[in-house]
Amino acid sequence: MRMYDLIYAKKSGQALSFDAIDYWAKGVADGSIPDEQSAALLMAICWQGMNTEETIALTLAMRDSGRIVDLSDVPGTKIDKHSTGGVGDKTTLVIGPVAACCGKDAGLSCAMFSGHGLGHTGGTVDKLASIPGMRTELSETEFLECLKSIGFANSAQTRDICPADRKLYALRDISATVESIPLITASIMSKKLACGADALVLDVKSGSGAFMKNQTDAQKLADSLVAVGKAHGMKVKALITPMDEPLGWAIGNALEVMESVEILNGRHADSDLTKLCFRLAAEMLVLGGAATDTDVARKMVSSAIESGRAFETLKKFVSFCDGDAEALNDPRRLPQAREQVTIASPQSGTLKSIDSRVLGVFAMNLGAGRKKQSDALDPGAGIRLHVKAGDRVERGQTLFTAYCRDKSMVMAKEILMGVKFEDD
Amino acid sequence: MRMYDLIYAKKSGQALSFDAIDYWAKGVADGSIPDEQSAALLMAICWQGMNTEETIALTLAMRDSGRIVDLSDVPGTKIDKHSTGGVGDKTTLVIGPVAACCGKDAGLSCAMFSGHGLGHTGGTVDKLASIPGMRTELSETEFLECLKSIGFANSAQTRDICPADRKLYALRDISATVESIPLITASIMSKKLACGADALVLDVKSGSGAFMKNQTDAQKLADSLVAVGKAHGMKVKALITPMDEPLGWAIGNALEVMESVEILNGRHADSDLTKLCFRLAAEMLVLGGAATDTDVARKMVSSAIESGRAFETLKKFVSFCDGDAEALNDPRRLPQAREQVTIASPQSGTLKSIDSRVLGVFAMNLGAGRKKQSDALDPGAGIRLHVKAGDRVERGQTLFTAYCRDKSMVMAKEILMGVKFEDD
Repeated sequence: MRMYDLIYAKKSGQALSFDAIDYWAKGVADGSIPDEQSAALLMAICWQGMNTEETIALTLAMRDSGRIVDLSDVPGTKIDKHSTGGVGDKTTLVIGPVAACCGKDAGLSCAMFSGHGLGHTGGTVDKLASIPGMRTELSETEFLECLKSIGFANSAQTRDICPADRKLYALRDISATVESIPLITASIMSKKLACGADALVLDVKSGSGAFMKNQTDAQKLADSLVAVGKAHGMKVKALITPMDEPLGWAIGNALEVMESVEILNGRHADSDLTKLCFRLAAEMLVLGGAATDTDVARKMVSSAIESGRAFETLKKFVSFCDGDAEALNDPRRLPQAREQVTIASPQSGTLKSIDSRVLGVFAMNLGAGRKKQSDALDPGAGIRLHVKAGDRVERGQTLFTAYCRDKSMVMAKEILMGVKFEDD
Repeated sequence: MRMYDLIYAKKSGQALSFDAIDYWAKGVADGSIPDEQSAALLMAICWQGMNTEETIALTLAMRDSGRIVDLSDVPGTKIDKHSTGGVGDKTTLVIGPVAACCGKDAGLSCAMFSGHGLGHTGGTVDKLASIPGMRTELSETEFLECLKSIGFANSAQTRDICPADRKLYALRDISATVESIPLITASIMSKKLACGADALVLDVKSGSGAFMKNQTDAQKLADSLVAVGKAHGMKVKALITPMDEPLGWAIGNALEVMESVEILNGRHADSDLTKLCFRLAAEMLVLGGAATDTDVARKMVSSAIESGRAFETLKKFVSFCDGDAEALNDPRRLPQAREQVTIASPQSGTLKSIDSRVLGVFAMNLGAGRKKQSDALDPGAGIRLHVKAGDRVERGQTLFTAYCRDKSMVMAKEILMGVKFEDD
């Protein structure tokens, strides 16, 4: 087999065989295929696409390029959730503990593996890492122990999981080949399959702040993810949810932990974020066999929050990971930004939209995210949203508070580019 | 400027600015742009194309990446010819001397720079190199002296000409991105412009053995080449000529020198190769201002051959390059293959076609060509065609003679895959 022939075939619109795709993934993982040939094939895939069989083959080949986590020691169904990347999306911190409480009696546990944030979207690992003392990478033994004792475990994916995907992702990142449904599918599903859960709820984002800008593309990605998961024997359900404005009031790692704790304490019951948490948690309970339908599941979720059981579960998990659980009761123990800058409304009117990409990039530039993998974070940095789309505001009213280490980092003009008024 | 943005723009179907293309070509030449990003951009160009302005910009940027030959010391018009790659195409050895003889009175000289063969197509440099003692790479001073004194000079392109093209070509070769009209155009025209001729006749091949498989694509390439040449102030004329069966009777370096000498001695007057030589030489004389029209030009070509002047010019050129001109009178002085194997017709019938790609690959495998740049050649190796498409043959009649260093290299079955009969 020659890599040249694979590139030529894909460029010519042909489907690649299972063996061809396996050859490529193995060659990427062991470094025997030059990056320039992989980059050319990636672009040819963006051009000509991949059918479901090819996407399944790529997913399998990438899964098998590294370690596969074995969760079979833990009885019952292990469920995970994955979001395709949002701004202000801290749902994992809420629904992981919630689903663990609600699923316990049905033998459902919540086995989550998360990534770091990159670009304008955040990552659960970085949010958890803002809790003092917290270890975000658990050994396989620790992960199993945590899952058995608490019903919820979350760990950063280790480097030995899907090395072929990690290398290909780095290549996609510099070669403008990230936006391809089969490549996104194989990247997500190879990791999720390698992490050993039996069931998976997917939150496919659609809108200005998401990879998928519209409902049609989001539906295609959702269908592709579900098809590949099912082909590998996984229970999978995909929801398509809006990612136009940021979720909730917080963007930034410690700020998002604070907001998660507030929701677990029953606050913000009507916020977009809380509604999304209820929706996702309910789907997890139904898919994992802990509830017969989503109405029943929602009541279970309410009870887990109102009783304080879900919050206790999160604190237990934080303690297990050597984190300062007391910081969840007292947010002053979380990292604080050195400076705060308020951004006022330049006019009176009704807010039409708040662009999550603009705010995500703004927060990233304050230190809440990374432009590239090696960038350091400021865990206290970020943005507080005082308003949401649809709100009536007066000229001079505070729209946002920026948290940062230096006031000169805040250019009000830049964040206001993400704000549209009804009469604009 | 960021290479990522160039790739993203081209992938999205946008045209690249002059500055963007210049940035890329310079970054390729100085090694500052990683090959994987260039490979992705090359594939995106195959996908989305380039308009004429972009192709002109790429040509100029690649020309300016290295040395530019200055022929202004030689008075009159300097003309070159370029073929897009054929099998058995030894026209340069014939028409270079012919055009030099015929153009002399009009101040037209023939300044040719040639390449090595690669894959199933041959290269003039390798053909000339089969003449004992011959130096195929002339210094700029030698080239000018040769051109002034003989009216014809041919040299291998040196490595300091168009280094950006050489690097990109190597990348295209492994990334299946050779077949792109703007990329082929920029590759050819950057070198031709750097080599300093004022006028250029292009022989664009069309057919089974050519890059362009059909007349439509060949016409597109011809139009693109002419547009770019004219935009840079060069006189350019493109002909589209068939490349279905090999040209003439010889494939292989020393064999092709023998056939060229035979034509310059007036033999094979009706062969496809002789007709092509007349056509190209006539266009060169008209484009270079040495003849008013192609009818006049053809008579000049006939006279140069019949009088022996063209053959004398070739011998003078060979002598200038320290080659054994006597070998042109006595082919036994040229390299001979150790073994000869005849291939007989498996059936009686009329030959419908002889596939030049199949025969070109066969000859390459015998040692007449290179699979990769570093392969060594056997100058005596090759194929003699005893028949042409349209000929009536009997079962057992010799179709081809293979010249090689070892009889075990010849698999009759393989070469016969290139032969079709009328009733097949």
